[in-house]
Amino acid sequence: MRVKCIRGIFLVALLALAGIAQAQKAADAIRATDQQWEKAVVAKDLEKSVAFCAPEGSMLPPNAPIANGTDAIRKVLAGYFALPGFNLTWASVAAEVSRSGDMGYTRGTFQLSFNGPSGQKVSDTGKYVTVWKKQADGSWKVVADIFNSDLPAK
Amino acid sequence: MRVKCIRGIFLVALLALAGIAQAQKAADAIRATDQQWEKAVVAKDLEKSVAFCAPEGSMLPPNAPIANGTDAIRKVLAGYFALPGFNLTWASVAAEVSRSGDMGYTRGTFQLSFNGPSGQKVSDTGKYVTVWKKQADGSWKVVADIFNSDLPAK
Repeated sequence: MRVKCIRGIFLVALLALAGIAQAQKAADAIRATDQQWEKAVVAKDLEKSVAFCAPEGSMLPPNAPIANGTDAIRKVLAGYFALPGFNLTWASVAAEVSRSGDMGYTRGTFQLSFNGPSGQKVSDTGKYVTVWKKQADGSWKVVADIFNSDLPAK
Repeated sequence: MRVKCIRGIFLVALLALAGIAQAQKAADAIRATDQQWEKAVVAKDLEKSVAFCAPEGSMLPPNAPIANGTDAIRKVLAGYFALPGFNLTWASVAAEVSRSGDMGYTRGTFQLSFNGPSGQKVSDTGKYVTVWKKQADGSWKVVADIFNSDLPAK
């Protein structure tokens, strides 16, 4: 009886550890995808950048309406990429995934700069939240991406 | 053999339907919690509003740094509530929950107004994403809440 009980506890502990390891692996996966997306944006590769978003994904940029779907997201990104001297970098600070490993989010900080209408450098620093959903092919895609500035409103 | 096969298909279909129903129920639950949170904010009930956030939750308001944890979130909300004529309402447009029913997000729109320094009415309209995590007691709490304006930067 005691042996069976110890076996049972051992099995439960093993399953719990396996669950934690799996969740950690999934969190590492969205963190890595978040970083690959950043690289595509830094390279101003429009199609590669758009491909990180799910067909039903939304981008919620500040000072602009929501962009629903990849066609609308493409327009938003194309607008950013067209800014003279555009430079956007970001890094995740936190990443977490659901127990089922099909939904997760990353949270982090960004730095943006571009040249304003009269050529002056405009710099911004802020934060973001991206919600990710695992696709049928095992890849992670953006379903919602939203960001805003840390700097006081002018 | 054929009977067994039909039984098997029936069972799989039943489980799939049960899964869809459960996901819908969980999505309804975060949508309802999102709405209850809005009611607490509309009522300017600071402690009730803060209680919707997980202890490790973050609020990411525009034009301000991130607020990590309930103490920092309380300060952000207290700052908003102290604005003369403060009025904030929001409504979710989308709600989705992971298969495991432990993580989800709501996305929606907000309307904000308050009286500026010289008494003039300041109005804003925008959008938000809130990430929710189911707690040990079965309640849903905010782990990340971020919002921004739809209006052009001034």
